[in-house]
Amino acid sequence: MEGIDYLAEERKKAEFNVDEMKIVWAGSRRAFEVSDYISKLVADDPGFSKEERTMLSRKELFKDTLRKSAYSWKHIIDLQLSEEEAEKLGYFVDEPAFIDSHLGVFIPAIKGQGNKEQLKKWLPLAYKMQIIGCYAQTELGHGSNVQGLETTATFDPQTDEFVIHSPTLTSSKWWPGGLGKVSTHAIVYARLITDGKDHGINGFIVQLRSLEDHKPLPGITVGDIGTKFGNGAYNTMDNGVLRFDHLHIPRDQMLMRVAQVTKDGKYVQSDVPRQLLYVSMVHVRQALVTYASGALSRAVCIATRYSAVRRQFGSQNGGQEIQVIDYKTQQSRLFPLLASAYAFRFVGEWLKWFCTDVTQRLKANDFSTLPELHATTAGIKSLTTTATADGIEECRKLCGGHGYLCSSGLPELYAVSVPACTFEGDNVVLLLQVARFLLKTLSQLSSGKKPTGTIAYMGKIEQLMQCHSDVEQAKDWLKPSAILEAFEARAARMSVSCAQSLSKFDYPEEGFQELATDLVEAAVAHCQLIVVSKFIEKLQQDIPGEGVKQQLVVLCSIYALFLLHKHQGDFLATGYITSKQGLFANEQLRALYTQVCLIGFVICVCCSFVYPKLYEAAWKDPLNESDIPDGFHEYIRPLLEQQLQTARL
Amino acid sequence: MEGIDYLAEERKKAEFNVDEMKIVWAGSRRAFEVSDYISKLVADDPGFSKEERTMLSRKELFKDTLRKSAYSWKHIIDLQLSEEEAEKLGYFVDEPAFIDSHLGVFIPAIKGQGNKEQLKKWLPLAYKMQIIGCYAQTELGHGSNVQGLETTATFDPQTDEFVIHSPTLTSSKWWPGGLGKVSTHAIVYARLITDGKDHGINGFIVQLRSLEDHKPLPGITVGDIGTKFGNGAYNTMDNGVLRFDHLHIPRDQMLMRVAQVTKDGKYVQSDVPRQLLYVSMVHVRQALVTYASGALSRAVCIATRYSAVRRQFGSQNGGQEIQVIDYKTQQSRLFPLLASAYAFRFVGEWLKWFCTDVTQRLKANDFSTLPELHATTAGIKSLTTTATADGIEECRKLCGGHGYLCSSGLPELYAVSVPACTFEGDNVVLLLQVARFLLKTLSQLSSGKKPTGTIAYMGKIEQLMQCHSDVEQAKDWLKPSAILEAFEARAARMSVSCAQSLSKFDYPEEGFQELATDLVEAAVAHCQLIVVSKFIEKLQQDIPGEGVKQQLVVLCSIYALFLLHKHQGDFLATGYITSKQGLFANEQLRALYTQVCLIGFVICVCCSFVYPKLYEAAWKDPLNESDIPDGFHEYIRPLLEQQLQTARL
Repeated sequence: MEGIDYLAEERKKAEFNVDEMKIVWAGSRRAFEVSDYISKLVADDPGFSKEERTMLSRKELFKDTLRKSAYSWKHIIDLQLSEEEAEKLGYFVDEPAFIDSHLGVFIPAIKGQGNKEQLKKWLPLAYKMQIIGCYAQTELGHGSNVQGLETTATFDPQTDEFVIHSPTLTSSKWWPGGLGKVSTHAIVYARLITDGKDHGINGFIVQLRSLEDHKPLPGITVGDIGTKFGNGAYNTMDNGVLRFDHLHIPRDQMLMRVAQVTKDGKYVQSDVPRQLLYVSMVHVRQALVTYASGALSRAVCIATRYSAVRRQFGSQNGGQEIQVIDYKTQQSRLFPLLASAYAFRFVGEWLKWFCTDVTQRLKANDFSTLPELHATTAGIKSLTTTATADGIEECRKLCGGHGYLCSSGLPELYAVSVPACTFEGDNVVLLLQVARFLLKTLSQLSSGKKPTGTIAYMGKIEQLMQCHSDVEQAKDWLKPSAILEAFEARAARMSVSCAQSLSKFDYPEEGFQELATDLVEAAVAHCQLIVVSKFIEKLQQDIPGEGVKQQLVVLCSIYALFLLHKHQGDFLATGYITSKQGLFANEQLRALYTQVCLIGFVICVCCSFVYPKLYEAAWKDPLNESDIPDGFHEYIRPLLEQQLQTARL
Repeated sequence: MEGIDYLAEERKKAEFNVDEMKIVWAGSRRAFEVSDYISKLVADDPGFSKEERTMLSRKELFKDTLRKSAYSWKHIIDLQLSEEEAEKLGYFVDEPAFIDSHLGVFIPAIKGQGNKEQLKKWLPLAYKMQIIGCYAQTELGHGSNVQGLETTATFDPQTDEFVIHSPTLTSSKWWPGGLGKVSTHAIVYARLITDGKDHGINGFIVQLRSLEDHKPLPGITVGDIGTKFGNGAYNTMDNGVLRFDHLHIPRDQMLMRVAQVTKDGKYVQSDVPRQLLYVSMVHVRQALVTYASGALSRAVCIATRYSAVRRQFGSQNGGQEIQVIDYKTQQSRLFPLLASAYAFRFVGEWLKWFCTDVTQRLKANDFSTLPELHATTAGIKSLTTTATADGIEECRKLCGGHGYLCSSGLPELYAVSVPACTFEGDNVVLLLQVARFLLKTLSQLSSGKKPTGTIAYMGKIEQLMQCHSDVEQAKDWLKPSAILEAFEARAARMSVSCAQSLSKFDYPEEGFQELATDLVEAAVAHCQLIVVSKFIEKLQQDIPGEGVKQQLVVLCSIYALFLLHKHQGDFLATGYITSKQGLFANEQLRALYTQVCLIGFVICVCCSFVYPKLYEAAWKDPLNESDIPDGFHEYIRPLLEQQLQTARL
């Protein structure tokens, strides 16, 4: 078969220093080196191959994931990988598995919520994987509202034990990763009841399966919750269901850092601030932002390569057709996604710093920036995961029919990325939390409280309510100050408008419910402002490498103007821009597309032989094992031979 | 397990005549009866069960589809189903299969393009399924641009045969449904070459597989193109790849209705107008609109039921939490989709009538309405399939985590619906065709040509360029005339604005490429106007049944105002409405949500026992066949026992 490297010419054209751009993407030279080392380790090892993953049955797939998890763990031990390297290994192995829950939530939950004795007992077991754990919070009937969980943990002073029980169908634990078939233990969240009194939700360490034969222990019903969206994707994970029938566990398996139950059944709270418990949730959301930028960049990479190879229409005098990447319709869908990937990468980098900063402050008993951190991670998680899922689907459609084939890599990437829109906080619920933060900030302005950080712009609210864009021609939209003011004015005005509408209601909560969709839109405006402003801040730093900064400046403008055009209604309705200025923005956006040095960005490790690869992948499908498909003799031959009446159908 | 019918109370509340609404949905009492008869036939027959479809491996799934296809065909024959009933059977069996290609494109292609002798020879074979055929047009490197196909059919006067050949990798036929494993024959589109001259693309009937042993014939390489997006979904279909190595076929297997090659190699065109060939393509697109409304309604039904059962937050004094359907954020996402399903149903109904009308005219040599039909089916197919795919995903997300489980039914519904965005004309390419039609209409205005039908509003262009909305309060937006003028003015102004921008280019085609994204937006505005206006027209008819029309009026307003809010930027930028009027629209939209008699709409046949069903479905997953998963002993035990070094990974 032909094996022309269709992209070779394009590669030479990259007008910026690609190596330096890779470092910008990774965050630092060291981060790049780690990433590069681990990615090659995985790519070169057939033990990590994911080529035929989407063709396997659920059982084959799951079995292979168990193998890969053990294999990864062996690498981590044998090569003495650092925590950073181990995390990258998980990223490149790229299969959700029980090990993620064990390392990512089970161990952190013990660390965060266990007292000293508990850490000493359980952490070594968990670190060595002598036990494997998961995090059993969500129930069949209860997700976002943790306070609504129904599982009970009733203290029995007679035996000095807790009795864990699932009183209803809806109290069944549902979704925990690693629970279905693998975990030996779980952190179970349940209503703590002592002496008939409900003390709310607490965590308990519960053994689920025998360490002898792996069978579920008496009193426990456990299994997998079934096939999930997509081929491969999260079907490698044994998300599970779990029910308790009056299971007894020792009293010291309640996680006791912030509260404990004494031998005589008293509920005693410690002086450890509960806010500290939030931080692990915040960390998970921040990690999702990093993941989102990575996933979007992979999709953009695939769609870009395809768009450079694919040609359609416009052949003149029998010559080649036009590369589809040269069509404005393709560019206007693809380039804003490329820009978004970078925007999300930078905001994620900043968010990571912000998390660390707030954690430091918490240790010094400074809680002042916690609400902002909470709102920001919620909002940016929501914004980036939604845009990433939508963006991956857009990339898939940009590959036409071919994107619908699993061999394009895009269907699985979508299916594995999209649940982030609903897990770790539903994206709409999260935006409502951002809206509450915005309203609170506004309400505190009158009391003279000066907003800081991402919400500092609210401090100049009067100016932002009155100003108008001074853009007089398309290129004025390239000025960061013009963009920033536009996004600040829009966000501020939408928040203020919501606050004004709310003030007309007798009961604020009723108003909040009634105006929820407006509040969500205001929250989106605020979050977009954060992403745009962090991109602009990034560009104020020194960025080495020929042409690198220039390209990033182009992408930053594309990201901002794309949003401005998409949400033109907001900018017009709030009166900050005129229709004419909106047209200028669109004109400038179109002009920017010609400045994207596309191929330089296509830096991920995947093959450019688009057509030969698709062609070869086809033959590996199980259906192609034989010319005559299973079922032909039973069902098709009788059809062709007009003998349906005697066939067994 | 509990089996409370959570929806029983809600069902009683439906404030309209549900039976009459079902008839409106079906289009007529007769259509409803057919649909009802066939749906029960399928639902009651375990031979058509689709319950475990998403858990099967590709081979098991495909085999079962072969069985169901034969079983369906047996029903069609045994029960002597009419064409309408047979079509409904396919709809409810709900598994894409080779039989769809055979009946839906292979036979129509012969009917449309074969001459009398060919019809006489091939149709009886095809009708009886003595041969099974597919439609091999698209190639690995060629989709939208049919004129770019590379497969050649070279006439050899020596043998009086055509030599069919695949000269390049990119000329491999790619995607035809039914081709991969089943079809014995195909209509193959190839460049016709006689005496060194290329006569462009023509269709040929080609036998692919032996009728003896089903093996591919010499000169033919054929197989399945591999796993596609999603669980179940189109993996039931053997979309195929096909290559020819100088395959000889008799001269009379060229489809010869519009052109033929004589024995001495002369290419002769008949007097049959080529436009007639378009009509089958138009029919397929029109059918996709009907399918889209059906798929969207199923998703809305599932999400609505879930939203009524799901409760989250807001529990007071230990009472139940609030049904999520009562949240405005849920309503504002769900109700416009419910309204869209009806809007698409009505526009689809009208489109079907329009197709029939144009076909009648064509037979009388009246081609005048063909361009409008072409543009309208292209545009409405694009609009409805995009909105349906997005809407299904939105419904899936509205079910939170549960929507991610295949047992919710939504992942498969999405995966099976979304390819309609890229097949039968890529949705963006189709919108550009609409834009060309709009520009042409505008350019002909000056020559006095009076536009009719869906484009008639262009006839009052001067008025539409100058008018302003006269809405003075929220409820003014309930007037159909206010809505219609707004959508007409917006569409007209966006088209005119494009035409003006285009006029600045020296070469119109260059301008068309440069302004493609604006043109796409103008086309969307035009298509949305059509959908809105057909909904309004529908409501001008008599609609019996208590409360039925009132509910449809509410839905019509929701659909229109939802679009108006979503595309507020267009309405503001074109100066037709003020910000204040935009706010009124949003206010009215919110008010309308309280008028939706939700449960009356939940009329599709599926169970309301949301939680018990999800719970029971879980246990059927192959992973739950045993407590100890495959791979545990090989990979997890060594991990737990710290014996990875000696494990075979």
